[in-house]
Order: sequence, then C-alpha cells, then structure tokens
Amino acid sequence: MSRTAGSHGPATLAAIRKAGLRLIYEHGYEALTLRRLAADVGILSGSLYNHIKTKQDLLFTLVRNHMTDLLANLDQALAGLDDPVAALAAFVRLHVTYHMERRYEVYIANSELRSLEPENRATIVAMRERYERQLIEILDHGVAAGRFRVADTRVGAFAIIAMLTGICTWYRPDGPLGPEEIVRIHTDLVMQGLAG
Amino acid sequence: MSRTAGSHGPATLAAIRKAGLRLIYEHGYEALTLRRLAADVGILSGSLYNHIKTKQDLLFTLVRNHMTDLLANLDQALAGLDDPVAALAAFVRLHVTYHMERRYEVYIANSELRSLEPENRATIVAMRERYERQLIEILDHGVAAGRFRVADTRVGAFAIIAMLTGICTWYRPDGPLGPEEIVRIHTDLVMQGLAG
Repeated sequence: MSRTAGSHGPATLAAIRKAGLRLIYEHGYEALTLRRLAADVGILSGSLYNHIKTKQDLLFTLVRNHMTDLLANLDQALAGLDDPVAALAAFVRLHVTYHMERRYEVYIANSELRSLEPENRATIVAMRERYERQLIEILDHGVAAGRFRVADTRVGAFAIIAMLTGICTWYRPDGPLGPEEIVRIHTDLVMQGLAG
Repeated sequence: MSRTAGSHGPATLAAIRKAGLRLIYEHGYEALTLRRLAADVGILSGSLYNHIKTKQDLLFTLVRNHMTDLLANLDQALAGLDDPVAALAAFVRLHVTYHMERRYEVYIANSELRSLEPENRATIVAMRERYERQLIEILDHGVAAGRFRVADTRVGAFAIIAMLTGICTWYRPDGPLGPEEIVRIHTDLVMQGLAG
C-alpha cells in the first residue's frame, strides 16, 4: 500500500490536533477513538503514531498548549503595568479576547480536566493556578492601595474568571455585538464590581 | 434466576438516576453504557427498562428535572418582590445556593447540552431562556428605575449567571468559606458591578 500523501510532517500533526479538538469538543474525550480521528484527518490509523503517542497524549498536548499560550499572552498584556486598575483592565481584555478566539480549547480544558491522567492533570492545574494567582495579586495590590473593595480576593478572582469565561457559551463571531463592545461591557461590570 | 431485590419501584428509579448522574459526571454521556449503569445500581441490565426507556431518556430527565426545580425555586424566591434591587439579591442568593447544592446536575446540564437530541435540547434551551429572561427583566426594570447601570442587560445577565455558576468548579462543602459568606461576596460583586 502506498503511503498516504502528507501523513508525515508538521502539517499532519496540526491537522490531527485540529480534528482531535473538534471531535473531543463534539463528543467528549472518552468517546474519541483513534480510528475515527485518523479517518477524519484522512490518514491510516497506524500513521497517527508518527505524531501522537496516545489519545491521552493528544488531550494533554491540546490543553497544555492552550494554557501555555494563555499564560504567555497574559505576561505580555501585563508587562510594565504597575497600576492595579490598568493591570485589571488588561487582564479583562486579554481573557475576553482569548476566550472569544479559542472557545473550543477553553471548553475542553474545562470539561475534560476529569479525563487527564493524574500527572497530566497536576501539570494543568498548576498552570491554571499560576494564571489565577496573577489575578489574585492584582486584586490584592488594588485592595492594599484602596482602589478595589472585595471581601476575599481569591473568591473574587474566581468569580471574575468565571464571568469572563462565560462568553464562550454564547459568543458567536457573527453575533450582534463586536469584540470591543463585549470587552467594554465586561470591563465595566468588573471595575464597578470592585469599586472601592 | 430470582428477581433482584428492589429492581422495581421508585427507590430503584432514584438509584438509577443517582448512579447515572455520577457516571455521566465522571466519564461523559457518550461513554455511559446501560450495562455499567445496571451494574452500579446492582440490578440486571434488562431491569433498567422497567424504569428508563433509553440512555437519552435518562440524560434528558436528569437535565429537565434540574431545570424544573431551578425555575420553581426561582419563582418562589422572586414572589412578591417588586423592587429590582431586592429581586436581584434574591436571584443571586437562589442561584448561588442551588449551584452549591446541585453542582453535578449543573455540570452535566452545561457539558452535555451537546448530547441531547434536537427536540430534547430545544426543550432545555427554552427552559434556560426562561430562567435567563427573568434576570434580564430584573436588570431592565432596575435600569429603567435608575438603580442599575449596564450597557446591555442581556450580556449583563449572561455575565452574572456565568459568574455565579463558576462556584460549582471550586466550592466544596468542607472548604474554608461557608455558604452565607459565598452568597455575600457574590452579592457584593454583582450589586457593585451594576451600581447606577
């Protein structure tokens, strides 16, 4: 049997990840079979192993790459911002924008955290905590400076992240509101919510 | 073979729903098999059909009963409240309390909406919209009365519901914060967020 065109190389890996993301999003991780994944990509099942070790490896890579990108984007967004109000505004903008653009990854990162093996799960949870900690620190800084008022900055940070992540469930690129309007409405809610 | 004790009657149905809820929560709907469900309940697979028609029927019943209870609880919480600030406080208290108590049902209602067949899904989406509409109306009422300020009450309602639903991901009955404290922190965030 001749080798299927393009069954090696980075383009195939990208196609595998893209198809895997969509299949997990639509049917859940446990229902994913490598046979179905290979069929969707248009390669032989055996060729998958040139690119991914296991189904678990695929899920972990998808979620880890998402968290790596999110953390890198946040570092960039917060660089040089010492004022807690400016930092919070930058956090809201980054989180909302990222979650509008990558809602499938966000969805599986949340709904399939249960499906990660313990070591992989611990890695992802640590990355999430690093992300959350940055918001907690912004809130702590703002409370200390008398700019924000919130009884518990940890719970406040979780509440803000949940609120902003919620846009994944209803945002559509062709909907009535543009990204800037959505950023503005959420920034107002968060800023007013913390008004000291 | 003798009939398994208790394989008929409402107690068995309740046990099936409870086990189904846990299995769907832990592994996802597509991975659920009726064989596994029957084994968990301790009855024969064939006996399941005395209680549920299909796996889809089980999922739909779990989600519908959750939405029916949530809507009934909300009607009760809002009864007689004309003031939008009081109504919003009641909404926050009800939503937070309910979501702390029934977080497994909330989780599957969100993560397995995709797994409902079209007609069942439409029923659930209509119930969710009825729930959301009540919050939108409270916000509209408060904006008209000059008590709340929010640029888009629909987006504001979605943001508030997402924020309050987020507690399902971290709340534990044995955690450091009690229910009353969690209600209070979220009420403050929402009230201040909408401050007119």
